Amino acid sequence: MRQSQLFTKTLKQAPKEELSKNAQLLERAGFVYKNMAGVYSYLPLGFRVLKNIVEIIREEMNELGGVEMELAALQDPEVWKKTGRWDDEKLDIWFKTELKSGSKLGLASTHEEPLSEIMSHYISSHKDLPKYVYQFQTKFRNELRAKSGLMRVREFLMKDLYSFSRNEEEFEKFYELTRQAYENIFRKVGLGERTYYTYASGKPFTDGFSHEFQTESEAGEDTIFVSRERKIAVNKEVYTDEVLAGIGLKKSDLLEKKAIEVGNIFPLGTKYSAALGLSYTDEAGKKQPVVMGSYGIGPGRVMGTIVEVSNDEKGIIWPLRVAPFRVHLIELKTDAVKVYQSLLNAGIEVLYDDRETSAGEKFADSDLIGIPYRAVFSEKTGGRVELKRRSETKTELLDVKELIKKIKKSK
Amino acid sequence: MRQSQLFTKTLKQAPKEELSKNAQLLERAGFVYKNMAGVYSYLPLGFRVLKNIVEIIREEMNELGGVEMELAALQDPEVWKKTGRWDDEKLDIWFKTELKSGSKLGLASTHEEPLSEIMSHYISSHKDLPKYVYQFQTKFRNELRAKSGLMRVREFLMKDLYSFSRNEEEFEKFYELTRQAYENIFRKVGLGERTYYTYASGKPFTDGFSHEFQTESEAGEDTIFVSRERKIAVNKEVYTDEVLAGIGLKKSDLLEKKAIEVGNIFPLGTKYSAALGLSYTDEAGKKQPVVMGSYGIGPGRVMGTIVEVSNDEKGIIWPLRVAPFRVHLIELKTDAVKVYQSLLNAGIEVLYDDRETSAGEKFADSDLIGIPYRAVFSEKTGGRVELKRRSETKTELLDVKELIKKIKKSK
Repeated sequence: MRQSQLFTKTLKQAPKEELSKNAQLLERAGFVYKNMAGVYSYLPLGFRVLKNIVEIIREEMNELGGVEMELAALQDPEVWKKTGRWDDEKLDIWFKTELKSGSKLGLASTHEEPLSEIMSHYISSHKDLPKYVYQFQTKFRNELRAKSGLMRVREFLMKDLYSFSRNEEEFEKFYELTRQAYENIFRKVGLGERTYYTYASGKPFTDGFSHEFQTESEAGEDTIFVSRERKIAVNKEVYTDEVLAGIGLKKSDLLEKKAIEVGNIFPLGTKYSAALGLSYTDEAGKKQPVVMGSYGIGPGRVMGTIVEVSNDEKGIIWPLRVAPFRVHLIELKTDAVKVYQSLLNAGIEVLYDDRETSAGEKFADSDLIGIPYRAVFSEKTGGRVELKRRSETKTELLDVKELIKKIKKSK
Repeated sequence: MRQSQLFTKTLKQAPKEELSKNAQLLERAGFVYKNMAGVYSYLPLGFRVLKNIVEIIREEMNELGGVEMELAALQDPEVWKKTGRWDDEKLDIWFKTELKSGSKLGLASTHEEPLSEIMSHYISSHKDLPKYVYQFQTKFRNELRAKSGLMRVREFLMKDLYSFSRNEEEFEKFYELTRQAYENIFRKVGLGERTYYTYASGKPFTDGFSHEFQTESEAGEDTIFVSRERKIAVNKEVYTDEVLAGIGLKKSDLLEKKAIEVGNIFPLGTKYSAALGLSYTDEAGKKQPVVMGSYGIGPGRVMGTIVEVSNDEKGIIWPLRVAPFRVHLIELKTDAVKVYQSLLNAGIEVLYDDRETSAGEKFADSDLIGIPYRAVFSEKTGGRVELKRRSETKTELLDVKELIKKIKKSK
């Protein structure tokens, strides 16, 4: 894309009310726009990053046998009354609204109830199970205090996967598979090294554990105790001798760290299926409630987390697979349109800075935006480009063919 | 995808409260689920159709030079007060809600105000224009009466494109281009032949016309007067001698028809830009308001319209490019997994009916779901498949190679 086609511009200063690194950098670079506290719009650059993260997650969900759908945001109170969660005391983040007739509606912050209700119409026999269903859908949460930029917001895209199994054993098997899928996702988005499978409280769902994926970061709201060796962690909320013994960990081997929760997986047991009449007839002809699990990731929070842990004093440093573009092609007083076309023809995603501004401004913008490769085309480079990785300082002169080859094989 | 992976089943009867053909067929076949009046969830089959329609639209938006982004649904009243549209008397389809602090918020039914506000931070010079921005985003409309299945709902995905131009002349040029893009879209989704570029009222935006794309259908809420020869129409609301004379039409050449509005394009003039301080400095150094246009299509309504005009007594007949799958592979007592794998390897999207049910049930489900090609594999077909188009009655026996070749070249 030509940079002149983007309507955004970089800002010299972050909006002064933004205290978190991710919001400061993402707003300065033109990835997001803050409409209100806790409400962000995704500008073209941010939208591209979000889409890349979504695609990585979708790949892994399909690999798990998940089927994609999309549930409505508007919620019928009747469905939620069956589990008691229509009550603001039970679920304290509802946005509620009403029809012209005066009937109340809610905006979904999660979808266990409506999905269980839908499934109850289609599942009746043990032959109908197991089933795995997921969506990327906008959630609304009436947070008392929005904070930390993209981390705690009132409206956000969420990937939520739900599993429907015949029994605990079948459920456990799938639950373990999702752990691997989540680890693949965090590796692919560039957070693998500092993200830990974390034991956390199972309440209010079951008496066992739920599990979080926690990314080590000073910006995190959570405290975890990390075993670097085993690549697992324990959330402070369940950090007891008893729990540690059960996992085979000792306090002396663990490091206390701040972390951001980038995903979570929950055993739901039969809480929702029992309340909403989601049952099946087993092979002996007996009616059984379906065993459920839910599995969440917020792509926007993942994006914010990447920025928190991957930046320098000049701006963002995007990992390759989530970057809005792979190459930032910068022309300096010399038309680089042929290079641009060659890159496009090679199927490389490139942001082409065709603006009439100074070299200094172009370089500063490029560092702030954080595209993995910067390719400068000028009179000085004599028909070639000067290539630099955003994360490194050394440059090299390459002709277009070499440039394409290098970019294509980069990982 | 294996049909056993889908959790949906077909229904013998449509829910009795559904009066419209599109809702009856889409619910019976398992494409959508009605959560409440005017609120539908997209089940896996429906989600696939919606995604195909979205991709066709996206292609054309990018071709126009549009840049994709995504705005928030939650709305700050302050921005809407600037045009007066926070007032329920002015915009009578608001869903309103509130923060825990008691501050009011709205749910967007359209995005002229927040987008103009955002653009005002980035546009200052004539060099910053023109710009074209679009999104696929969920709108909320508090309709007094939801009706006609997917046609008039309270929550729906919308593609909204907005143009920002220096002057009327530049705007008009782009407006004409969008007409062509829209015609491409309706042709690609299979509605081209019966969709008309329609002159309609410009109010409340400007004194001139706006334009609708109207698809001839008895299920439509609108009345239009059609010139088959010129492939244009006039909405009843502006059907006057004066208007007809301006377009060069005569009443005697026009046919009165019911139609569904599947898209619309609006000149917005400077109404929003003036109210929200979106202006630029022209070449002479003078401040000018930006000239805007907006361009909508609801992919869900397009889906409903396709079903209204493309069905028979047995079910839906999907046009090729929007169909959830290209081939419905049906095995009858003989494992067709090798055929399934061959089709997948050839990059063909196939729904594989691997269920243990009767031939009659499988054929009835297949006709109801409406995938363009049905390929039956059984003992009788002797290693080959019996291929039939959903829209035709004749069948032919093909080996897998011939099958792949035929499907790949079909349009």
